[in-house]
Amino acid sequence: MPFPVGDSENDGKELFEWLIHPYTSHKFFKDIWESRPLLVLRHCPRYADGLFSTKEMNRILNECNVRYSVNLDVTTYQNGRRETHNIDGRAYAPVVWDYFKNGCSIRLKNPQAFSKPVWRLCATLQEFFKCMVGANTYLTPPGTQGFAPHYDDIEAFVLQLEGKKEWTLYSPRSGKETLPRYSSGNFTADEIGDEIFTQTLEAGNLLYFPRGYIHQAKALPDTHSLHVTISMYQRNSWGDLLEKLLPTTLQNAIIDDVEFRKGLPLDYLSLFGEQNCDKHPDRRRAFMGKISDLFRRLADKVDIDAAADEHGINFLHDAMPPYMTQDEKSRSIHGCDVGMTSPGTPTHYICDIDEKTRIRVLRKNALRIVASQNDTNDNSVVQVFHCVQNPRVYHQEEKKTFEILRQFAPALEFLIHKYPCYVTVGSLPLDSNEDKVNLAISLFEKGILVTEEKIKML
Amino acid sequence: MPFPVGDSENDGKELFEWLIHPYTSHKFFKDIWESRPLLVLRHCPRYADGLFSTKEMNRILNECNVRYSVNLDVTTYQNGRRETHNIDGRAYAPVVWDYFKNGCSIRLKNPQAFSKPVWRLCATLQEFFKCMVGANTYLTPPGTQGFAPHYDDIEAFVLQLEGKKEWTLYSPRSGKETLPRYSSGNFTADEIGDEIFTQTLEAGNLLYFPRGYIHQAKALPDTHSLHVTISMYQRNSWGDLLEKLLPTTLQNAIIDDVEFRKGLPLDYLSLFGEQNCDKHPDRRRAFMGKISDLFRRLADKVDIDAAADEHGINFLHDAMPPYMTQDEKSRSIHGCDVGMTSPGTPTHYICDIDEKTRIRVLRKNALRIVASQNDTNDNSVVQVFHCVQNPRVYHQEEKKTFEILRQFAPALEFLIHKYPCYVTVGSLPLDSNEDKVNLAISLFEKGILVTEEKIKML
Amino acid sequence: MPFPVGDSENDGKELFEWLIHPYTSHKFFKDIWESRPLLVLRHCPRYADGLFSTKEMNRILNECNVRYSVNLDVTTYQNGRRETHNIDGRAYAPVVWDYFKNGCSIRLKNPQAFSKPVWRLCATLQEFFKCMVGANTYLTPPGTQGFAPHYDDIEAFVLQLEGKKEWTLYSPRSGKETLPRYSSGNFTADEIGDEIFTQTLEAGNLLYFPRGYIHQAKALPDTHSLHVTISMYQRNSWGDLLEKLLPTTLQNAIIDDVEFRKGLPLDYLSLFGEQNCDKHPDRRRAFMGKISDLFRRLADKVDIDAAADEHGINFLHDAMPPYMTQDEKSRSIHGCDVGMTSPGTPTHYICDIDEKTRIRVLRKNALRIVASQNDTNDNSVVQVFHCVQNPRVYHQEEKKTFEILRQFAPALEFLIHKYPCYVTVGSLPLDSNEDKVNLAISLFEKGILVTEEKIKML
Amino acid sequence: MPFPVGDSENDGKELFEWLIHPYTSHKFFKDIWESRPLLVLRHCPRYADGLFSTKEMNRILNECNVRYSVNLDVTTYQNGRRETHNIDGRAYAPVVWDYFKNGCSIRLKNPQAFSKPVWRLCATLQEFFKCMVGANTYLTPPGTQGFAPHYDDIEAFVLQLEGKKEWTLYSPRSGKETLPRYSSGNFTADEIGDEIFTQTLEAGNLLYFPRGYIHQAKALPDTHSLHVTISMYQRNSWGDLLEKLLPTTLQNAIIDDVEFRKGLPLDYLSLFGEQNCDKHPDRRRAFMGKISDLFRRLADKVDIDAAADEHGINFLHDAMPPYMTQDEKSRSIHGCDVGMTSPGTPTHYICDIDEKTRIRVLRKNALRIVASQNDTNDNSVVQVFHCVQNPRVYHQEEKKTFEILRQFAPALEFLIHKYPCYVTVGSLPLDSNEDKVNLAISLFEKGILVTEEKIKML
Repeated sequence: MPFPVGDSENDGKELFEWLIHPYTSHKFFKDIWESRPLLVLRHCPRYADGLFSTKEMNRILNECNVRYSVNLDVTTYQNGRRETHNIDGRAYAPVVWDYFKNGCSIRLKNPQAFSKPVWRLCATLQEFFKCMVGANTYLTPPGTQGFAPHYDDIEAFVLQLEGKKEWTLYSPRSGKETLPRYSSGNFTADEIGDEIFTQTLEAGNLLYFPRGYIHQAKALPDTHSLHVTISMYQRNSWGDLLEKLLPTTLQNAIIDDVEFRKGLPLDYLSLFGEQNCDKHPDRRRAFMGKISDLFRRLADKVDIDAAADEHGINFLHDAMPPYMTQDEKSRSIHGCDVGMTSPGTPTHYICDIDEKTRIRVLRKNALRIVASQNDTNDNSVVQVFHCVQNPRVYHQEEKKTFEILRQFAPALEFLIHKYPCYVTVGSLPLDSNEDKVNLAISLFEKGILVTEEKIKML
Repeated sequence: MPFPVGDSENDGKELFEWLIHPYTSHKFFKDIWESRPLLVLRHCPRYADGLFSTKEMNRILNECNVRYSVNLDVTTYQNGRRETHNIDGRAYAPVVWDYFKNGCSIRLKNPQAFSKPVWRLCATLQEFFKCMVGANTYLTPPGTQGFAPHYDDIEAFVLQLEGKKEWTLYSPRSGKETLPRYSSGNFTADEIGDEIFTQTLEAGNLLYFPRGYIHQAKALPDTHSLHVTISMYQRNSWGDLLEKLLPTTLQNAIIDDVEFRKGLPLDYLSLFGEQNCDKHPDRRRAFMGKISDLFRRLADKVDIDAAADEHGINFLHDAMPPYMTQDEKSRSIHGCDVGMTSPGTPTHYICDIDEKTRIRVLRKNALRIVASQNDTNDNSVVQVFHCVQNPRVYHQEEKKTFEILRQFAPALEFLIHKYPCYVTVGSLPLDSNEDKVNLAISLFEKGILVTEEKIKML
Repeated sequence: MPFPVGDSENDGKELFEWLIHPYTSHKFFKDIWESRPLLVLRHCPRYADGLFSTKEMNRILNECNVRYSVNLDVTTYQNGRRETHNIDGRAYAPVVWDYFKNGCSIRLKNPQAFSKPVWRLCATLQEFFKCMVGANTYLTPPGTQGFAPHYDDIEAFVLQLEGKKEWTLYSPRSGKETLPRYSSGNFTADEIGDEIFTQTLEAGNLLYFPRGYIHQAKALPDTHSLHVTISMYQRNSWGDLLEKLLPTTLQNAIIDDVEFRKGLPLDYLSLFGEQNCDKHPDRRRAFMGKISDLFRRLADKVDIDAAADEHGINFLHDAMPPYMTQDEKSRSIHGCDVGMTSPGTPTHYICDIDEKTRIRVLRKNALRIVASQNDTNDNSVVQVFHCVQNPRVYHQEEKKTFEILRQFAPALEFLIHKYPCYVTVGSLPLDSNEDKVNLAISLFEKGILVTEEKIKML
Repeated sequence: MPFPVGDSENDGKELFEWLIHPYTSHKFFKDIWESRPLLVLRHCPRYADGLFSTKEMNRILNECNVRYSVNLDVTTYQNGRRETHNIDGRAYAPVVWDYFKNGCSIRLKNPQAFSKPVWRLCATLQEFFKCMVGANTYLTPPGTQGFAPHYDDIEAFVLQLEGKKEWTLYSPRSGKETLPRYSSGNFTADEIGDEIFTQTLEAGNLLYFPRGYIHQAKALPDTHSLHVTISMYQRNSWGDLLEKLLPTTLQNAIIDDVEFRKGLPLDYLSLFGEQNCDKHPDRRRAFMGKISDLFRRLADKVDIDAAADEHGINFLHDAMPPYMTQDEKSRSIHGCDVGMTSPGTPTHYICDIDEKTRIRVLRKNALRIVASQNDTNDNSVVQVFHCVQNPRVYHQEEKKTFEILRQFAPALEFLIHKYPCYVTVGSLPLDSNEDKVNLAISLFEKGILVTEEKIKML
């Protein structure tokens, strides 16, 4: 599988097109996304080789602290009954394989924390989707099914890696369950509605379906099945944006626009309410008209920039850290290994960055500048959020952030908008060369810059 | 002062017209309300006799548990400095009068809890305004001022009762302080803006000004001043209604309308936010258009009935209990005194209500029917909220409420909408005579019905 | 019934002796209190006349805001089944009497809030018991029983007021239920253990039983029953005191005594615990010896004064306000009625207190001096708690307290310890006459002093 | 440095004796522990080689996610001023070394999370101390001091690893600061009291001082200094045990012993409290005698086993996981690597444990059996807590625990008390061979057992 390295957003797009190949991204978003399932039968069993395997799962179980329920579920679905067999504590490999041999499915819940290729896949795709991209891997013994029919609250890309699995998809059962906000519970056979198709997925094949599509899948009798599900767009809808927007929009409207502060009509409580709903239709209609007018005024007060920044900060907290190649690391602080000439005497500690050094930010969507209060010394500052130092485990640590003086903000914005181009430190829109170099060193030392050439240390 | 007794809502209107006489209510709401101050000089010093007096205040201090800070404030405003002299505990009359003699103003904060005429005034007006009507009385020694210039968050009707006071009013200082949601702090002389007028209020005169108008007042050197301020419409604006409406409206829209559940565009986080606000104006405009469209869709989902009921329930919790005349009491459970024929043997205990008894609800706006879940025995019921048993102290007790079976709700609605007419029990829209009589007795025993004739007890 | 007026603590004792007459207080506390039930048959049906009656209950229902569940319970106990028939809201007299006529018992839960004699009874007894004295009245229709067998967590004095009731008492069922901390639930017939006696109480009779004694009572078929139960000593035991004492005692010991800060032995976790409890008996015994030694050291660190003050402050919050006679009121601020010579001109406002005025505190146990931090102006002060301004409804208002300068504390202590003697203001242990008079006026104005002679106002 | 491998508790003792060599443990605990500082000058600069070094610190900075404040502090102490120079986010090696070069001290706060030898040291010592053993490493540039004089709340063993540092120790300033519960703030020169000694520590030397000893240290001008401080016994005192014991002891005493439930004397509130503390000395003394008696009764009710289990569970949560050698791992589930014969086909998954297999628990003090309620299926179970699967980061995960059926508890206790001996599965005190083998496999699969011989997998 190809991991392009250039413009991170475009890299993400290319990787996505690899995922849906031979579909193009343009056609996919036009015809398929959030609208209908897509089955891609590629007749190329090794298409996704190197991404994940039962062998890799075994390595993870042997080497990593995989815990039941936290990282791994052991499940069965037999005779219409779904069961979870998780015990407490660490999932040691022999015990997990014993379950597997006895017909249990194994779900590894955040493989990106343990597997570098899956981390790389998620981190690359998230630059394209600009929202959290998650993953789960499912290992199913021959002839068994591990989960009951249900629907999810995410866009799902099922990539078959080993063996075969027979999938059955069903249409959303109603308009309200189309693109739903929350996943369903487990359904019984007579709750699942109209089948769309039943199809066997073999290694290298892909199945996409939007949130709300009920699905179930069963390993064929002759072989086990291993697939990874890539997911995104969980509560990333217009309604979710409005939930952030509305309260502040109304508060601002009340402050700015006296129409919102005028008193309600004296008879309002007599017009509305359960006991009045079939009285005075004309007065009610007039009142409703006023409400509609206020909604129009509200729409004018919307501050999407603030909501987008709040949303963007949350994304950066949810996000995987960028996957960096060795080459990239060597051009950043992440690869600046220091040695010791003798005990207590490090070899070097100064980054050789000057006006001619060519730099860019590490990823297009890995940082965000947000207005800030003054800092504790009462300097005017902006706050920068980023995901460069995120752990690979979701929300294991706090949001990553630092402050820079407000006068340096345009230079950082310049770098963000110039990406993917490298620019010289000297070209930063700041007054003095000293400021330019100092800012560059400071950002470099925080890990959010890479240089075009391998950095020297002094 | 006239306390009309007929149709409670109309009684409130008549009392309000007494308050603003010779203005009419119609003209007042057309020209003055929320727009400009109004000064009514009536040249009738005894116009409001019987409402409140220093003698009544003295009686209250002597007889009632008036507590500093809770019920009464002792204040001065001298040389631009506002001070509160409250001590702990009960305000005994001699101590309060000692303060007064030494130049302190006395504010009695909820006179309606201690004074029957003020209670009656507030309870009657609230039937007209359908929102909480409050009162404060202010007693000021000759030649002093008790409060700094400030503005309030309520509509204020200042009724001079004894002596004279010189009032100065100033325009709201800005659009944002026009009809403000929250009261101001104390202002200094150079913060208060443009004077509108300075005018002396004598007993019987009225001064009205909307929220946001800065004011200060000083007793003339030759006499003390006593006035009552009647207030209403605190946070009773369109914006306050929208605060209740918006969250549920959006939740309903997200559930009902798939447009709100569709995913945001992939590039949205790159279009908006502090660092992007001067980029891609066309894409931003298109996005904003979609937001405006969603606001229009939102306006269609508004459920004002639910919000009005929530608002109406809160009003009934805030409200004063109805002031009942002796005649009224004798036609309700409130006046059904029972005697004892011998120890342990009450004289009677059955209300003589039958199909021919003519009944009505106690006040037009003293109760409200709200849909409810099933009760604990799984009967389908509605919940009735009312203020008939409220204490005279604001929120001293919980909300007053009871449930009735859903099939009885139309009969109670019928009574509410028939008000002020009395109707026979037999005319209630219920199937059986037994149901009609039982419902009537049940409501009568809860205190929310009056009969046209004095009730007999058996 | 006699209400003595002299030394409040002695008044309480005399009233208590009236209650248990012909028993003496000394004999009662020696032989009966907390040990065994006592039945006093006085053959004097009018012994408690004037304390409470069904007529008074009827007056209360007619005039006061008595609420179901809050102030009044309607109950039945039939065929071994205990039911509560409370509805929502105010208990109007005709409705309550209708229940009564239909066989329901009526419990008025805090009659001292509505009845002056019951208030006076509780307030007087509490000066003797120095803990909250509560009351309930029970009205039972002929031939019925309102409550299931149970035991309570208070000392109970049942005073029959009207009619007759047959009581059955049972011994505590075990050592653990002797003087229990918490009341029992309702018992069935086979849970109640050994009967001590069954006895009919007639008007004027008294039944006492300690907490933990199971009891039930039934009105005789020929007449209703009314009794009042006086209760006290709810969680007022040595254990309750230790609960307050222990945490601070240990904290002080750890701060003061290094023995408590020394490290535990290395093997302690291997000596104790479920898995080790039958190992190393010698080492365990030695360890236990050390623990016993630390308990002895703890006992030396006990600060009962601090715990008693905490306890005493809570008592003053729980307590009924003193019941004052008209004569007493006229010698205190409570009776200092002010008149008006003309509107806004009070007749007087200065208490005529000088060095020769003879004063005492209102009640022996109605106030308590507690050390305090400095006040907001950084003066050294003590805090005084009192119950003089308490409402008659339990905990309806906050604790009543004020501060006085620390140098005045000895003068207030002097007054407390001189009680019941009146002393001249001049005899207060303060340096200047001005201080003496100012303190006396200040305390007088807070309502906690009475003068020997009726006070003049200037 | 020697890491013995045999009986874990004895291994800990041997390692501790290596730490204090040539002192013996017996002599140390008799003469030094918690009593006085000890300086061990060993004239053997490579005594602790392999434990930690600046080179190892550099490796950690280069490879691990070391975060400022969380894992690492950058500090200076100059001219009496202590400063922390931490920034946000990850501490990249070049940046840290730049600080160091500029005179800042570097404290790595939990080296056991990054360094295997330090982990092993702490994990081994904790088996001897049965309480959490912590570590910090301090790297100081030549001629500088990083911290102000202060005292700590732990027993401190300072082991010099590189360079030299001049230490000055001062006696605790008072009895109250002897063996204190909480660390001090930073002291100024005139607050630190009497110097005990000033002494230069060279590599291989050890300095021990009890909690409460004020100390400061400075690197000599000619070389940097690196040392590790091993700490333990933080709030592990008799007083801490009593804090756990007292509340339940009192509750039990109140339930069991009626003396605690008897009412307080009527005059108690008049005997005690600020205002009464110099009155009635005899009555007070008698009352105090009763309190002492109750304390004696309390001491008899103490349940140390329950407190020890609560304490022991907390220790197991605080504890480092055992450090296991490769040999040990190969005899436990931790070393049971599974391979794959082909994709989806693991090589084996059954532990070959039978009656003849010889087993023991992994460490003497790494697990604890605690009584438990019934489980969700209402089986009678005990709960087992352990630290075998703890992460190396303090409290990063929840407490590790599992349940076993109560009838298996004696077999697990048997194993715990037999340690360090291996016993055959067949010797477990259980009825059937099936039970014995099943329990052994179950415990083996949870990682708390090792076999004497390398385990085979089938």
